[in-house]
Amino acid sequence: MSKSLPKRSENYSEWYNELVKRADLAENSAVRGCMVIKPYGFSIWEKMQRALDDMFKETGHTNAYFPLFIPKSYLSKEASHVEGFAKECAVVTHYRLKNDPNGKGVIVDPEAKLEEELIVRPTSETVIWSTYKNWIQSYRDLPLLINQWANVVRWEMRTRLFLRTAEFLWQEGHTAHSTAAEAIAETKQMLEVYTTFAQEWMALPVLRGVKTANERFAGAVDTYCIEALMQDGKALQAGTSHFLGQNFAEAFDVKFQSKEGKLEHVWGTSWGVSTRLMGALIMAHSDDNGLVLPPKLAPIQVVIVPIYKSEEQLQAIADKVKPITTELKKRGISVKFDDNDAFKPGYKFAEYELKGVPVRLAIGARDLENNTVEVARRDTKTKETVVLDGIVDHISDLLDDIQLSIYNKALAFKEENTTSVDSYEEFKRVLDEKGGFVLAHWDGTSETEEQIKEETKATIRCIPLDQKQEDGVCFYSGKPSKGRVVFARAY
Amino acid sequence: MSKSLPKRSENYSEWYNELVKRADLAENSAVRGCMVIKPYGFSIWEKMQRALDDMFKETGHTNAYFPLFIPKSYLSKEASHVEGFAKECAVVTHYRLKNDPNGKGVIVDPEAKLEEELIVRPTSETVIWSTYKNWIQSYRDLPLLINQWANVVRWEMRTRLFLRTAEFLWQEGHTAHSTAAEAIAETKQMLEVYTTFAQEWMALPVLRGVKTANERFAGAVDTYCIEALMQDGKALQAGTSHFLGQNFAEAFDVKFQSKEGKLEHVWGTSWGVSTRLMGALIMAHSDDNGLVLPPKLAPIQVVIVPIYKSEEQLQAIADKVKPITTELKKRGISVKFDDNDAFKPGYKFAEYELKGVPVRLAIGARDLENNTVEVARRDTKTKETVVLDGIVDHISDLLDDIQLSIYNKALAFKEENTTSVDSYEEFKRVLDEKGGFVLAHWDGTSETEEQIKEETKATIRCIPLDQKQEDGVCFYSGKPSKGRVVFARAY
Repeated sequence: MSKSLPKRSENYSEWYNELVKRADLAENSAVRGCMVIKPYGFSIWEKMQRALDDMFKETGHTNAYFPLFIPKSYLSKEASHVEGFAKECAVVTHYRLKNDPNGKGVIVDPEAKLEEELIVRPTSETVIWSTYKNWIQSYRDLPLLINQWANVVRWEMRTRLFLRTAEFLWQEGHTAHSTAAEAIAETKQMLEVYTTFAQEWMALPVLRGVKTANERFAGAVDTYCIEALMQDGKALQAGTSHFLGQNFAEAFDVKFQSKEGKLEHVWGTSWGVSTRLMGALIMAHSDDNGLVLPPKLAPIQVVIVPIYKSEEQLQAIADKVKPITTELKKRGISVKFDDNDAFKPGYKFAEYELKGVPVRLAIGARDLENNTVEVARRDTKTKETVVLDGIVDHISDLLDDIQLSIYNKALAFKEENTTSVDSYEEFKRVLDEKGGFVLAHWDGTSETEEQIKEETKATIRCIPLDQKQEDGVCFYSGKPSKGRVVFARAY
Repeated sequence: MSKSLPKRSENYSEWYNELVKRADLAENSAVRGCMVIKPYGFSIWEKMQRALDDMFKETGHTNAYFPLFIPKSYLSKEASHVEGFAKECAVVTHYRLKNDPNGKGVIVDPEAKLEEELIVRPTSETVIWSTYKNWIQSYRDLPLLINQWANVVRWEMRTRLFLRTAEFLWQEGHTAHSTAAEAIAETKQMLEVYTTFAQEWMALPVLRGVKTANERFAGAVDTYCIEALMQDGKALQAGTSHFLGQNFAEAFDVKFQSKEGKLEHVWGTSWGVSTRLMGALIMAHSDDNGLVLPPKLAPIQVVIVPIYKSEEQLQAIADKVKPITTELKKRGISVKFDDNDAFKPGYKFAEYELKGVPVRLAIGARDLENNTVEVARRDTKTKETVVLDGIVDHISDLLDDIQLSIYNKALAFKEENTTSVDSYEEFKRVLDEKGGFVLAHWDGTSETEEQIKEETKATIRCIPLDQKQEDGVCFYSGKPSKGRVVFARAY
């Protein structure tokens, strides 16, 4: 709390890094690319987990757990899958250390070499489909609707807290179906679940669409995604849902007997969101004073700071506050009464601002006399003095209002920063001047997509699900196009 | 369901293995020693997690997450710690695969060798204390009360589902304190939490005690434990809580400024329970027909099986049952109405027996006429016909009764199988004939303990917390002893 945060307008990237550290969300560990998620950050992730897990269960899924390690040969069974993941995986080659005969410490015991190396899972399709092979014989065994909460590892050379780390936490759903139509419906259903979660819990408006072949998950037939916009105008992929076709069923020989008695390959999906969502949450809403958290994901929703000059005053305030906190808790609202004597109110105000607590109440001697309290909301930084009668209803409504208001602000930002362009000049100008989502005609070829990426660092985020039919020409190649896709520079 | 389980009396070990597989709890994966926890098994684990997590939070702990990987040099910093874990750890040496130039598939890329090997965490003291170094400066930063839910890996040569697997799931609490007394109080508090959980949730009576130096956690000053007794007379360590003294603070140079302004090393604890508890739960209560689950941990507490000959009858039963299931759910009781047409009632009865569902209701045409239902309890296999009026209260009471009754049965078993012995002859005879906990005088030396282990495979499970002062002589060495310790053959 000694100095203020870097300003977003001056150095967005530094602002983010400092905010993550100072708000006690996460920090880098001694292991390259691996982060420590600190208690305050983890409590936000726990709220995300609980909300998502409830939604998964409501849609008929159950949790299970599959091994951390994947035999090297498994990874190779699906050709594009290994292509996508082999370049960045942690490999276990030995299973024992021994004392170094030449000195101190321990060394890898060369006699404890594994016959086949194990990969630390970068994602679990291979190990799960090798298991499904034994679980699925008949159409009666389908659909299989399973999710797992797990850690995964992808060896990244350039890492950033939450956004890109070698190890991260996520959930991965893996489902098996008897028809393509059912698997596609599942893929789309989970995209809907992610959309609802992003919008209603994270207060984060998202674009829904399908990835181009270049950006598709390694092993998928189609990758659906939700894309969000950060305050610096860069896009962030916030969740993906893959229609796997029969690719993994073929790779692992997973067949079922249909109602008609025929032996057919199973249809699959997989879908996931990760601790990356923490990065999205932070970058979408927070300001130069610190975090701005939507109330539904805030570990502390209301903080009450007493302002007092004597033990007597503090006691009087505590007595006044007690029934309010009791009633708030009864309604499921998390509240903290901070009577820590070691810090002054001004310090506490700044601290809770930094931590993004949505509502702050301050109550002092004059408030006691007047039966009032000062109510400050974090998102708009507005304050008002409110009579204590009916304060609980007031706070409850205020939290709802803040949740909605944060969403609306982000929605307005997204709309302001979505631009249609028709020429390459305009495309580059918009990207450089404001960023955001850029809607443009594209000729549908990977070559054009790659050249645009090389020249501008912008990628096609998705072909929107609600894409309008519109005849046009690709701004890059001049070839015909039937509708606009969404470009952006992205995290 | 095609054939019955092996009998406990004939082959306890096979009974356990088959039960775990057939009740859909877990199975071996293609990766040596790593298990797949199947949805039904995982849903029991989730209930355990939720109950424990609530208890941890009630006692002031918060969750966080630390890296999966530990630099090899970290493991070596605490001398006895590395001694304990070096022999069984998975080592990551490379971070990339590449296409095999000589043929198909992928090989480890020799150019992607790590400068320092990484160990997949067998436990997280080292990585956590290296982090605490930066979090702790003053007594104001203490106590630090953190827990983590995570996967860990210990390379085991002989594995068994849940009981001993290379990868397992667990929670590990790691706390830091300013005084030894406070750290010891924390160690004991968490042992109490584990005891309460084992007894009240798992219906598992446990012995509480302290480990001997031989059996102590590698790096601890004292290891407290809870020990449970399985139906075959073998003991199972169900949870441990370690007083670490200043060992890890010294190894990682973690100091704090005391109130008096002195710089001192921090005092630590760590404590954990794992998916091993699943093994304990299964082995303590189940019978030759399948699982017996205490209601508090049963994913399905009540199953209702309709017995019908026509669609009309089924509909009439469904209508009758509907308000009952609604009311049960309102009370937080999980209930399943199984109207699956593909299986006969007899098949379903056997299936739910195998899965350990505590209460089964069967309702047929005659019940409809009489306004009754057949209520069967899994633990005692008794049935009664009950009038439907007041059935919800009846079931609710029954679930409480089953929970208690399972506990009492296990408690009686433990008491019957706890024997005091005074000679080596008797010691061996009791071990061979009935097993169980054997209370005996021991001279307090590691040598005696090791020789007894070598000769009988029995280990000292603990020095009981409620040990009675009693003068005696060690049954092995004849040397004096002040009280009895608990020996057993153990998992």
